[in-house]
Amino acid sequence: MIIVADNLQITHPVIDKAVRESDPTPVRDLVRRCEAAGAQAIDINSGPLTKDPESRMTFLVETVQAVTDLPVFIDTANPKAMAAGLTANRKTAVINGFSLEPVKLAEILPLAKAYEVDIVGYLLYENGHVPAGADDRLGVAVAVFEAVQAAGVDPDRLIIDPIVAPVVWADGMAQNREILTVIRQLPELLGFPVRTMAGLSNLTTGGGPTDKKRLLERTYLPMLAAAGLSYALLNVFHDKTVRTAKACEVVMKEGVFSWGAVA
Amino acid sequence: MIIVADNLQITHPVIDKAVRESDPTPVRDLVRRCEAAGAQAIDINSGPLTKDPESRMTFLVETVQAVTDLPVFIDTANPKAMAAGLTANRKTAVINGFSLEPVKLAEILPLAKAYEVDIVGYLLYENGHVPAGADDRLGVAVAVFEAVQAAGVDPDRLIIDPIVAPVVWADGMAQNREILTVIRQLPELLGFPVRTMAGLSNLTTGGGPTDKKRLLERTYLPMLAAAGLSYALLNVFHDKTVRTAKACEVVMKEGVFSWGAVA
Repeated sequence: MIIVADNLQITHPVIDKAVRESDPTPVRDLVRRCEAAGAQAIDINSGPLTKDPESRMTFLVETVQAVTDLPVFIDTANPKAMAAGLTANRKTAVINGFSLEPVKLAEILPLAKAYEVDIVGYLLYENGHVPAGADDRLGVAVAVFEAVQAAGVDPDRLIIDPIVAPVVWADGMAQNREILTVIRQLPELLGFPVRTMAGLSNLTTGGGPTDKKRLLERTYLPMLAAAGLSYALLNVFHDKTVRTAKACEVVMKEGVFSWGAVA
Repeated sequence: MIIVADNLQITHPVIDKAVRESDPTPVRDLVRRCEAAGAQAIDINSGPLTKDPESRMTFLVETVQAVTDLPVFIDTANPKAMAAGLTANRKTAVINGFSLEPVKLAEILPLAKAYEVDIVGYLLYENGHVPAGADDRLGVAVAVFEAVQAAGVDPDRLIIDPIVAPVVWADGMAQNREILTVIRQLPELLGFPVRTMAGLSNLTTGGGPTDKKRLLERTYLPMLAAAGLSYALLNVFHDKTVRTAKACEVVMKEGVFSWGAVA
């Protein structure tokens, strides 16, 4: 399981200001701290970038890649920003991501073929709604897989994100239990070892006591890992969560156990 | 998932002395502390009780049940001690447990029918060895189930313990990954919602840094819970482990989520 830092977000005022002013220092500092904290990939969550999408995403990708060799997940719904980020990429980039929404199919998915990069596919209906049950999610996964093939993208490029549900939703926890089944069953359903990704902070979106949120995240994360999750998107400054993620890797990986591998 | 305290062990000198001297105070104190710490059942691990098995187990069961209404798991390989404990029981007792070893089949298993109590069946070969793979364990589970039926014990009385492997074994972690599969598949294999139990401290038997042992236990526990584990046998004085166990229960149980249920 690879730890993807979700820390680089335009919603943070410091990052927003840095992007508006093309000031690389705060972005560099943040990325260096993420890598030191255990990040194995960096999600660049730029939001829609309604203003100057190309130049701003170019700035972000170049600034991040100036200080790290880690893969970057380019996390925007703006096709122009996405294309600019992929053009700026000099190392490893992943498109994060597309769904069955028509605009995503038409303008984001083809970029995976054009730039020959991996792409995250969200398990969302065409209208952007979240499927409720495991069978619904598996049905959407098949449609996502078929869309990838129809777009001429190598299926091995696909990473499926089943969309972790906030626990405060009426049936959020039931959905999250079903997501474990979905992650476990996807490789057999699609006939190849498809990778999966989950955003852990989704679990505790909304109100709630911070320590309980973190405990719940650290409890759900090993469940995701045991189901076979490939990428865990999380806040790498939550050090206990990172230690748990690394311990998950120790439990799940093949090979000889050693205490040295436990953080 | 029910938290079973593994704290009451004859290997603790204070408990050993209390049993030898029929002094109820240390046992009572320990059990009260276990219940306060979150225990939902108490394992009475008396060892083989080679001397005075009947009177010593009677003392243990009576002393424990004098201060708690929690179910007791009578954890001895000595059939005389087991029978005495079951005779002394005035509340809920569980036999912990039997295996395919001939002496266990002949002398422990029949007690489940005679006393009409639940019984833990270990997934061990007739010679006491641990099966290596998931298929081997499932095969032993079928044999255990058939033995239960042959003994005239209601199959609903059976709780299967797949025997968590120490990580320091050459293939311990691989076995523990397979145990997750076994726990998940048992109900379908046996055709009814068979309950399962696992001893978490088995995972970290042997040397190793304490904080890393606890982290590994807190990481493996949610994996067991997500697989459907019914009973987690653990040290309830490890408060972070108990918090994790309770958080597992919040994730896994049906019904409406509330932050109040997270410890």
